Amino acid sequence: MTRTSSTVQPVIQQLMQNYDYGDDGELTILPLGGLGEIGKNMMYIEYATDDSCDAIIIDTGIMFPENDMLGIDYIIPDFQAIVDRFQHVRGVIITHGHEDHTGAIAHVMDKVNAPIYTAQLTRGLIEVKLRSARLIDQVTLVTVHPNDTVKIGPFIVEFVHMCHSIPDSLGLGITTPLGLIFHSGDFKFDHTPVDEKPPDFAKLAELASRGVLLMFADSTNVNVPGWTPSEQVIDQAFEEVFEEAEGRIIVSTFASLISRIQQVVNAAKRHNRKVAVTGHSMVENVKMARRLGYLDLPDTMMIDIGQINRTPHKELVILTTGTQGEPSAALSRMSVGTHRNIDIVPGDTVIMSAQSIPGNEELVSRTINKLFQRGANVLYYGVAAVHVSGHAAREELKLLHNLIRPQYFVPVHGELRHLRAHAELAQSLGMPKKNTVVVENGTPLTFTKDGYRVGERIPGGYVFVDGSGVGDVGPAVMRDREVLGASGFVIVNVVIDEETNELIYDPLILSRGFVYLREAEELLSGAADEVERVVDKHNRNNGSNGRSPSLSNEIERALDKYIYKATHRRPMIFAIVNRV
Amino acid sequence: MTRTSSTVQPVIQQLMQNYDYGDDGELTILPLGGLGEIGKNMMYIEYATDDSCDAIIIDTGIMFPENDMLGIDYIIPDFQAIVDRFQHVRGVIITHGHEDHTGAIAHVMDKVNAPIYTAQLTRGLIEVKLRSARLIDQVTLVTVHPNDTVKIGPFIVEFVHMCHSIPDSLGLGITTPLGLIFHSGDFKFDHTPVDEKPPDFAKLAELASRGVLLMFADSTNVNVPGWTPSEQVIDQAFEEVFEEAEGRIIVSTFASLISRIQQVVNAAKRHNRKVAVTGHSMVENVKMARRLGYLDLPDTMMIDIGQINRTPHKELVILTTGTQGEPSAALSRMSVGTHRNIDIVPGDTVIMSAQSIPGNEELVSRTINKLFQRGANVLYYGVAAVHVSGHAAREELKLLHNLIRPQYFVPVHGELRHLRAHAELAQSLGMPKKNTVVVENGTPLTFTKDGYRVGERIPGGYVFVDGSGVGDVGPAVMRDREVLGASGFVIVNVVIDEETNELIYDPLILSRGFVYLREAEELLSGAADEVERVVDKHNRNNGSNGRSPSLSNEIERALDKYIYKATHRRPMIFAIVNRV
Repeated sequence: MTRTSSTVQPVIQQLMQNYDYGDDGELTILPLGGLGEIGKNMMYIEYATDDSCDAIIIDTGIMFPENDMLGIDYIIPDFQAIVDRFQHVRGVIITHGHEDHTGAIAHVMDKVNAPIYTAQLTRGLIEVKLRSARLIDQVTLVTVHPNDTVKIGPFIVEFVHMCHSIPDSLGLGITTPLGLIFHSGDFKFDHTPVDEKPPDFAKLAELASRGVLLMFADSTNVNVPGWTPSEQVIDQAFEEVFEEAEGRIIVSTFASLISRIQQVVNAAKRHNRKVAVTGHSMVENVKMARRLGYLDLPDTMMIDIGQINRTPHKELVILTTGTQGEPSAALSRMSVGTHRNIDIVPGDTVIMSAQSIPGNEELVSRTINKLFQRGANVLYYGVAAVHVSGHAAREELKLLHNLIRPQYFVPVHGELRHLRAHAELAQSLGMPKKNTVVVENGTPLTFTKDGYRVGERIPGGYVFVDGSGVGDVGPAVMRDREVLGASGFVIVNVVIDEETNELIYDPLILSRGFVYLREAEELLSGAADEVERVVDKHNRNNGSNGRSPSLSNEIERALDKYIYKATHRRPMIFAIVNRV
Repeated sequence: MTRTSSTVQPVIQQLMQNYDYGDDGELTILPLGGLGEIGKNMMYIEYATDDSCDAIIIDTGIMFPENDMLGIDYIIPDFQAIVDRFQHVRGVIITHGHEDHTGAIAHVMDKVNAPIYTAQLTRGLIEVKLRSARLIDQVTLVTVHPNDTVKIGPFIVEFVHMCHSIPDSLGLGITTPLGLIFHSGDFKFDHTPVDEKPPDFAKLAELASRGVLLMFADSTNVNVPGWTPSEQVIDQAFEEVFEEAEGRIIVSTFASLISRIQQVVNAAKRHNRKVAVTGHSMVENVKMARRLGYLDLPDTMMIDIGQINRTPHKELVILTTGTQGEPSAALSRMSVGTHRNIDIVPGDTVIMSAQSIPGNEELVSRTINKLFQRGANVLYYGVAAVHVSGHAAREELKLLHNLIRPQYFVPVHGELRHLRAHAELAQSLGMPKKNTVVVENGTPLTFTKDGYRVGERIPGGYVFVDGSGVGDVGPAVMRDREVLGASGFVIVNVVIDEETNELIYDPLILSRGFVYLREAEELLSGAADEVERVVDKHNRNNGSNGRSPSLSNEIERALDKYIYKATHRRPMIFAIVNRV
């Protein structure tokens, strides 16, 4: 299926001259994740012939736990089932610097021996992670630029400048022995981005002109009609707010949204306001982006967060984290009055320049309401144009499809419902249904020169990371946490004389998360009575036959019944019987 | 401030003839709730003079717990601080039959001795609650109709037919000694509702013509531009789906959305499909609505859910609950393959005719994705016009303000951010800022003939209902549940010889929700060693001085340190020391 064209760039032409992998092999694509979005966090691509096997990995991201995944810090792709294939990996490519594409880099590089290829800003963000995992010295990092071409085994990878909500976002053209793959990465078609570098349409057209076998494309906003507005509309919204605000302006946004931070700085400059920064990740990212030249923020405009009280409110902008209502983030602390440097006062204007990530809506609303309570005016997505999405909406996706015109289409970056809708969109543009392939995480898709087949789903599920434990919290522990979180526990401790079978002390009852103990004396003393009754009964029964179930089971069952009757609740109940 | 007009209706005129309450008293309005929306769940209105005090209560609803309120079933308004004023209540008015306006009726009627005034369908829904709380025989229920007028102490209440997403939704005109109050209830201006009874604009205009002192109005959708589409658009969307579906059509909607259920039945009738019903509340509500004449669904169209396999898929519609992804609801069970009667198969079309309630987005998405996985086509709000909101959008609110033209405006039914936006909307229409009053739940607002004042917030917070317990789960228990849910617990049980101070048995370690025990042997045996070390050390120290802290504290602290170092987690740790 390999096709060539006279428009192919010289570098590619040169690389293709010694390109003798043949098209008898199998090209297998395996999206990995486990939760929610498909093909976003990690993708394994392998080309195997009878006597060779080479692979690349695209992105190594984490997923955020859903609200009912109690205590979980984050989730990494479950790659256990293919870990023995990691020896074939010749390169790891990271498309851009967001956590859902980079966050698992240390977990992956711990098992993979190959260089990482990525753009400069993304590299800066990844290095922090590798350093804190003490892997920085063992890993080779290669900085790539748009239009660079890199040969990684049988894969010739070309990097395409795209636009997203972080600079240095890359699309990928991947020449394989079976044909050219185009991977959009996270993208939108912004003609007027903040860094003034619109997507490289010419490169996209050039790739298309060679004939694209297969396209992977971002499906996040497939159900959003029209075009995603340009980042430029934010400037207008900021301008209005800066024009009118009489007091401080506090802008909360994602720490990785460097271009948005630049927009805030630009507005501050126009209105002679100084910029203070708070929130750990915001402080770190501003520092790194300034160092690498991705943020134009002169020293003279900056003011230390501890010094802001010496500056008139009208001359201040504060950049902060906390767009998702995370209780420990700087903005949430301001909203409840526990931020070290900032007390919200009437006259403050707060801009939430972000969208709620699904699952965080309640926390975000709570933060907004609390800021209002303290007298701030709050502007947020939905009531003011202070944020735009970083993903292409429906009409942009149509443009991408008609630009690239691939033979096959595999929607990625979205939940199953988005992928199905994206496949339908491709069909509505004329692609035959059988050429649109929806696969879920863990399901391999194999192309040969004769077509494709969908394989059996590999075993695996979620890999939860909790504290320093990776994967040691599984379904059983999660079920226990659910019960404990909903109903708490009750523990009964009894000490029994081995000879007389009588209780030596009164039963000790311990409980947490069940009822407010000070007001539940009656309930608890009733429970203690119940335990004594069970011990007595057990002794009587054991007198006549020795086959009764164990005393602790009997106590647990009796207490469960007693407590349910009294409270209609079912805490976890344990009885510890000490015989001495 | 009382005003009269020649257009006043005869009944009102007659009632006003003996209306001699004078305008020297104080009219106090107290919204009650505790969480999220303000003035929605319950409102207490009192008129007090030197020698009289009379009150009414409007609505008695519940709030649903947020995602981090573990184990809570629902939340009722905290009325403890005013429970001694309940003796003054002369009537309880329920505007419509949704849970957030009716769900706490039994909790309130347990303390209030006054009749309930409400419309027929609402009454049917309330009676179920009073019956299961064994209060039905003690409570007087009065059925009212639109345009009825009822005198309740100094309050003359007129009922106004409004439109919402449940039939029999009422607005209220309340004549008080200080002037006329208009309360919108939950509403939208639907010119073509399913029951063909548009809002009574003439009555609204007539109330307005008398001069309205004060308006309460629904703020839910104040940030939604334009007009909320009519329920009629649903008919068109359903028609398209019914036209195209080759297999079964499964429609999930709110059980209380009787008019939506009627629309499904109408479409089924047009396309010669039979209707089966599943899901407890759906079955109950369909039964009640048919009995009271609110649902036109002939016996001949109904088919028992247990008999559906005898009917061709093309001739079936299944009505079900589960729009919010609740794991125990019928639709969720279908999505995971555990519904008793229905296995989802390719060809099935599922319509989610509802909106996600904030906080439920994740569960809803999960359900949709799982239904797709099983081969169903799923149509949901956002991708198809299968649902419309029941609340007035921005332009409708403007119309309401210009129709009623009240002197004062108190926005209700929304979070603080919505109320602020609604007050601003009123100001943009020309109302002076000081005449728009935003108060939070628990904050009394008092009018006299000279104006108004905002009082001190009354003490009170959330009242959680968990099982049969009302209010016994407070902040301390909730904090424990949070820790238990996130990290689980570890319990150490040791038995010590009182004389030698030596351990009699090896320490027993019990844990849940912390780590997967079978794979944590090393960790646990290390913990046991640690406990033995602490006991030894304690004995040595106690030998030299008897003032060391208690052994159980020492064990707990040592284990916390040991476990954090090994896992970076902090489960709850308890040590039980038995001395024998």
